[in-house]
Amino acid sequence: MNTPDENFDLTGLVLPPAPKPLGVYKPGLIVGNFFYVSGHGTVKQDGSLIVGRIGQDMTIEEGKLAAQQVGLAILATIKANLGNLNKIKRVIKVLGMVNCTADFENHPFIINGCSELFAKIWGDDNGVGVRSAVGMGSLPGNIPVEIEALFELA
Amino acid sequence: MNTPDENFDLTGLVLPPAPKPLGVYKPGLIVGNFFYVSGHGTVKQDGSLIVGRIGQDMTIEEGKLAAQQVGLAILATIKANLGNLNKIKRVIKVLGMVNCTADFENHPFIINGCSELFAKIWGDDNGVGVRSAVGMGSLPGNIPVEIEALFELA
Amino acid sequence: MNTPDENFDLTGLVLPPAPKPLGVYKPGLIVGNFFYVSGHGTVKQDGSLIVGRIGQDMTIEEGKLAAQQVGLAILATIKANLGNLNKIKRVIKVLGMVNCTADFENHPFIINGCSELFAKIWGDDNGVGVRSAVGMGSLPGNIPVEIEALFELA
Repeated sequence: MNTPDENFDLTGLVLPPAPKPLGVYKPGLIVGNFFYVSGHGTVKQDGSLIVGRIGQDMTIEEGKLAAQQVGLAILATIKANLGNLNKIKRVIKVLGMVNCTADFENHPFIINGCSELFAKIWGDDNGVGVRSAVGMGSLPGNIPVEIEALFELA
Repeated sequence: MNTPDENFDLTGLVLPPAPKPLGVYKPGLIVGNFFYVSGHGTVKQDGSLIVGRIGQDMTIEEGKLAAQQVGLAILATIKANLGNLNKIKRVIKVLGMVNCTADFENHPFIINGCSELFAKIWGDDNGVGVRSAVGMGSLPGNIPVEIEALFELA
Repeated sequence: MNTPDENFDLTGLVLPPAPKPLGVYKPGLIVGNFFYVSGHGTVKQDGSLIVGRIGQDMTIEEGKLAAQQVGLAILATIKANLGNLNKIKRVIKVLGMVNCTADFENHPFIINGCSELFAKIWGDDNGVGVRSAVGMGSLPGNIPVEIEALFELA
């Protein structure tokens, strides 16, 4: 069985730089056996952000890719804080927040872009936790997706 | 003193089927002494969803009943995962998300539809936890209420 | 080194009355080593609420002060439940929810009004946890900011 780090290498994806805080908060925090992760945005490899509102500036497929990019930013924070992805035992909880028009209805499809990535890394059991996927009124910098997460440490 | 299961029977309400995931997540997850519950929607007894936006398509009283229906869906997930309601010691936290017009102001009244149900099941102390009740820009499938919750196991 | 209570005195700020629940929930709850705090609003010293939508009725600076006021309301709940601020070891998590126009982009600046207060009380490490700062469709009573939080007990 592959390790989470090996599973990540198999995706062929590249991590963006671990995001620096845009305010008075920490990107990640260890408390006991939990690793708490701040709301992360759509950080690209060059450190800039994917911006736009789904249903207005972006298609649903672009939104799903944006959610995957948020997942990659979270993985970058995990590596920056813990050293490698093997230090995470399981995904406990994901809160997927979508910046979309008021008539948008398919938030779960968008947030699957992140959740499918986590399932590839930690597997169909440990890589899948509870989740809410919901539509916001707005997000910082007009990013399309923000995701916060809670992990259990190995 | 009645058990939580006996208290539920006294409500005369009927549980909907435990909702299946609409994406890559688990409806409920045990981690240590906690039971985490995904954002749940307004699942009716026939498995379909109550839909509509409060202040536009639905009245505030209809919204409160919708929140009660979300509470019933959460109870169905508890029974599907844990066997019965007695396995829960207490409600820790509820996040009540309301799909409503931007001028709507009475989110607490809506989410009480779920919180009053939980108080009947587990009592005025253990059945009542912390809570936020807030207005979203949109919700999946245009459901009026989505609620995620955290419980302590008995 | 000052205690958190001494640090609060140095701010020169005054606590509002600890807010009473506006629905079926507890303002704060101890579970194990955690102190969970409900979504708090902009409670002023006279017990009334700051109201308005940021970008429409309020400037960004007024919004930041409103977030500081929410932070003070949370401190009041901590004192009402635990006796003093020294009982808190650290800030784990803050969810900062902003009631703003759909084109608003600077939610982190707003929520810093609360986070900078917490950093003054518990210090730059223990006073700073993970955070999401996001835009809602609406908030109860049209308050500009609602914040829920999770603390670790000393």
